[in-house]
Amino acid sequence: MNYPNGKQRVSMKQISQTFSNRGMTLEEDINMTNQYYLDMDLAVIHKKPTPVQIVNVNYPKRSAAVITEAYFKQASTTDYNGLYRNRHIDFEAKETKNKTSFPLANIHDHQIKHMESIVSHGGICFMIIRFALHNETYYLSADKLFLHWYEKQRDGRKSIPYNLIKQEGHEIPFNYQKRVDYLSIIDQLYF
Amino acid sequence: MNYPNGKQRVSMKQISQTFSNRGMTLEEDINMTNQYYLDMDLAVIHKKPTPVQIVNVNYPKRSAAVITEAYFKQASTTDYNGLYRNRHIDFEAKETKNKTSFPLANIHDHQIKHMESIVSHGGICFMIIRFALHNETYYLSADKLFLHWYEKQRDGRKSIPYNLIKQEGHEIPFNYQKRVDYLSIIDQLYF
Repeated sequence: MNYPNGKQRVSMKQISQTFSNRGMTLEEDINMTNQYYLDMDLAVIHKKPTPVQIVNVNYPKRSAAVITEAYFKQASTTDYNGLYRNRHIDFEAKETKNKTSFPLANIHDHQIKHMESIVSHGGICFMIIRFALHNETYYLSADKLFLHWYEKQRDGRKSIPYNLIKQEGHEIPFNYQKRVDYLSIIDQLYF
Repeated sequence: MNYPNGKQRVSMKQISQTFSNRGMTLEEDINMTNQYYLDMDLAVIHKKPTPVQIVNVNYPKRSAAVITEAYFKQASTTDYNGLYRNRHIDFEAKETKNKTSFPLANIHDHQIKHMESIVSHGGICFMIIRFALHNETYYLSADKLFLHWYEKQRDGRKSIPYNLIKQEGHEIPFNYQKRVDYLSIIDQLYF
């Protein structure tokens, strides 16, 4: 829902997803991995900033400007993108505490549309899914995700079973410096 | 300068640059152009959200969460990126009211470093520069920008003369729907 002034209403549920399900740990691990890729000059991949609608800013003398009123906006794309071996990389990352399935409510329709555009224009597009309680992190390519998404639309299915992700996805190796070494999977699949 | 809590101090000068020199008009024109490219399924190119360090959020009952304290952070990359004809696209856009030159103070060292990484990993990287008072908008490829940047480091030069940009750059055509049709320049240069 959009307010007339361009603010977007974000529900309590979305906020709590932002700060819990979405998993700071996975995000931190991916950020560290991306920093390692950057430091080693392997790839240039960044997390996009959280989109915020700024409404009011104070400019105190001799100190930093303070944003005193702002609202969360829903992201219209995925969280991460960049460049690796001449290819455009684009992905979303989600963590779940569910043991048996990954809830599709974590993904929005406009994100799927965005991922479809990326695939059709020649980008490498995927999802990183962490099952926190199994301590396992998977790479699921966008085309596999789309199939589950359309099943959801058709049959009302609300999640992807853990076993299917294990089967269709690729487990991402953990390494002290490359905590979510997804480029190793891309190397296998594309190069 | 970084505060211990991760806040970054942004000076009054930076703020005023953000809201004036940086040119909302050019930004709006580019956003409209990107939306047109997206609607026509020509390319997937977005502006990244403004990076903000969120310090405090209020959660009023039955309404949207309000960010009540946040600070601007300096961007470590460029403002725009995306995908066109299988190629990664990355650029920065700046507007100036100067008639005779483009001030290099508009660009930061880490942005140049970022652009160098993009070029070395195979992306298409450039700068869009608008001379507001001439009502002209130029595409300047990253490698040309780098030469001027190193001259600045070496000789202390503070700007790129308008005439050089006219000579080394490519004027971007204006079109009612594609207000800054930079893909037409990329087509000429790369395809």
